[in-house]
Amino acid sequence: MTTAESTPKGTVSMANLTREEVGLATRNHGILLEALRYPVTPIGMHYLLTHYDVPALDPAAWTLEVGGLVTGPARLTLEDIMSRPRVTQRVTMECAGNGRIAMSPRPLSQPWGVEAVGTGEWTGTPLRGLLEEVGLSDDAVEVVFTGADSGTENGVEQRYERSLSVANALREEVMLVYELNGQPLPPQHGFPLRLVVPGWYGMGNVKWLSRITVVDEPFQGYQQSHAYRIRRHADEPGIPVSRIRPRALMIPPGIPDFYTRERTVAAGPTTLQGRAWSGFAPVERVEVSTDNGMTWADAVLEAQRDPYAWVGWSYGWQAQAGRHQLCCRATDADGNRQPLHPEWNLGGFECNAVQRVVVTVPER
Amino acid sequence: MTTAESTPKGTVSMANLTREEVGLATRNHGILLEALRYPVTPIGMHYLLTHYDVPALDPAAWTLEVGGLVTGPARLTLEDIMSRPRVTQRVTMECAGNGRIAMSPRPLSQPWGVEAVGTGEWTGTPLRGLLEEVGLSDDAVEVVFTGADSGTENGVEQRYERSLSVANALREEVMLVYELNGQPLPPQHGFPLRLVVPGWYGMGNVKWLSRITVVDEPFQGYQQSHAYRIRRHADEPGIPVSRIRPRALMIPPGIPDFYTRERTVAAGPTTLQGRAWSGFAPVERVEVSTDNGMTWADAVLEAQRDPYAWVGWSYGWQAQAGRHQLCCRATDADGNRQPLHPEWNLGGFECNAVQRVVVTVPER
Repeated sequence: MTTAESTPKGTVSMANLTREEVGLATRNHGILLEALRYPVTPIGMHYLLTHYDVPALDPAAWTLEVGGLVTGPARLTLEDIMSRPRVTQRVTMECAGNGRIAMSPRPLSQPWGVEAVGTGEWTGTPLRGLLEEVGLSDDAVEVVFTGADSGTENGVEQRYERSLSVANALREEVMLVYELNGQPLPPQHGFPLRLVVPGWYGMGNVKWLSRITVVDEPFQGYQQSHAYRIRRHADEPGIPVSRIRPRALMIPPGIPDFYTRERTVAAGPTTLQGRAWSGFAPVERVEVSTDNGMTWADAVLEAQRDPYAWVGWSYGWQAQAGRHQLCCRATDADGNRQPLHPEWNLGGFECNAVQRVVVTVPER
Repeated sequence: MTTAESTPKGTVSMANLTREEVGLATRNHGILLEALRYPVTPIGMHYLLTHYDVPALDPAAWTLEVGGLVTGPARLTLEDIMSRPRVTQRVTMECAGNGRIAMSPRPLSQPWGVEAVGTGEWTGTPLRGLLEEVGLSDDAVEVVFTGADSGTENGVEQRYERSLSVANALREEVMLVYELNGQPLPPQHGFPLRLVVPGWYGMGNVKWLSRITVVDEPFQGYQQSHAYRIRRHADEPGIPVSRIRPRALMIPPGIPDFYTRERTVAAGPTTLQGRAWSGFAPVERVEVSTDNGMTWADAVLEAQRDPYAWVGWSYGWQAQAGRHQLCCRATDADGNRQPLHPEWNLGGFECNAVQRVVVTVPER
């Protein structure tokens, strides 16, 4: 496992976890891995990371303010937004901190294993049309999205805010969303309105949207300039987290032990299945190892149905008596492939090291 | 804090938590405490504890088998069940392990803080009518409910199974449920059919129900005779967990810190609010302490609308600069009152010690 030379501030090297990490884990939740069986994740099984508190917003009183460097500032009601062109996209969303628990020393934050992912059918209106209507000024550089949720991080009190470059904000797939899986957006997923940026990690998909502001310089808010950056040292500016690295996950086969989650699988032919995704390019290949990454074989991939949603894969395995570590890894059409081991960084982001599932096959 | 004399097998005394506990915490999730604002918990915000895996059940192929010591064994389709008398009840459900993390030494299991609770509007058909139709034999003693989910616990491979005495199974409020909050039961809550036993901790509300068996002696399955018992030593039979002890929870006021979840509250008048419940009797009193349990004052209670659902409470607080520990506690009409400190037992059950919320009020 890749480790830093020391244990920097904000990280720990101990194997066990702190009360605060567990408090976060109990509050935020991953997908139940068996829910990888569904092409669209049922509400309540999609991963969920809530930075602060879910705010209480009255949809009748709520408005979206669109301002800053625009020709015609606007204030829209939910009705206004729902009367605009309507699109539905199937999008896989993943937390940028997914996989963090495997890093050593471990960044002190939400201790995700591999389960911080889900796929929704998101319905809303393209952002581009709205931005064109309000008219971006020539000196517009970024678009800032402000949520209604607030809290403190490292002593900095803030509303949750993230930005996109004008070029990214104008991409046709970026949308303002008011429905999930054919239902009004649940409170925990951003009711009444959220941003969805297909292909990007979760932090860009601002929930409980209340304001869109066009600005003429790079946004310096906490979640943009401090958090969500790949750094090895606290004093470097770091590289901003954006698109989702490739990952394949399998539905753990057999039956689990309650406490350890280790699996028991019956000897004989078993179909290993799961899903794979990348925010850079279509997934081109999924490989499976049943010997802890010593040897790999190709899984069968389903056809890609949606450009920003995961694809299904399957692999036939002859389970023989013994203890096995099953792994899977994805490679996308841009040549990005999952690493075998975590690539360490200070915040614990983009850790797409391969999933390992321990199974025991009893003698018949 | 109450502690045992030693650290028995299956418990730890360390402050930090194991990887397995965190794996469970990431998979199972509590209510987001701010969701106590809703009288009915939105789907996805209700607590969820899944012993094994959520099974994949095809509602067209699924049937419920009713057999054992009955006059006329039956096999019912989902359509059969949905054509029976339909009732909707608002019921507060809580995990029997809620509060476990406060115990010391700590039982190694799902490390709940205080958040393993939720209230649903459950729709289904009374169990009693069905049992009367199939006709219980005179020697019937218990009714066993078998789920479709299986796994191992402490080396024992099993389907999830729990029983009720005939008297409890025939109580009019016990129901077979196929809808939650007006929607088909979500997979994670037991689709297509679950048992709901109002007033009882979660373990009795068997999900993914596949079989009901009437038997002539007390059921000895793992979840009945081994798990979910109040014991101080592994070799005692213990007292079975059943009805929910009283508890009050507050919506944490102000805004949170992301990592510690400690709160910042503005000085001045603040309304503390929350909900309280008991599976024994109506909640009669909720008290609030703003000085870490030194002094207590009565909160205002809403009228009880549903016999098995929580009631709202509120309390006016003059927040003054400083760091405060806010507490609340419930007392029910049977005289059960929450303890200030956990009452230790080996499995970490029924720990209804008062909630403590740390807030800092800055100088103006």
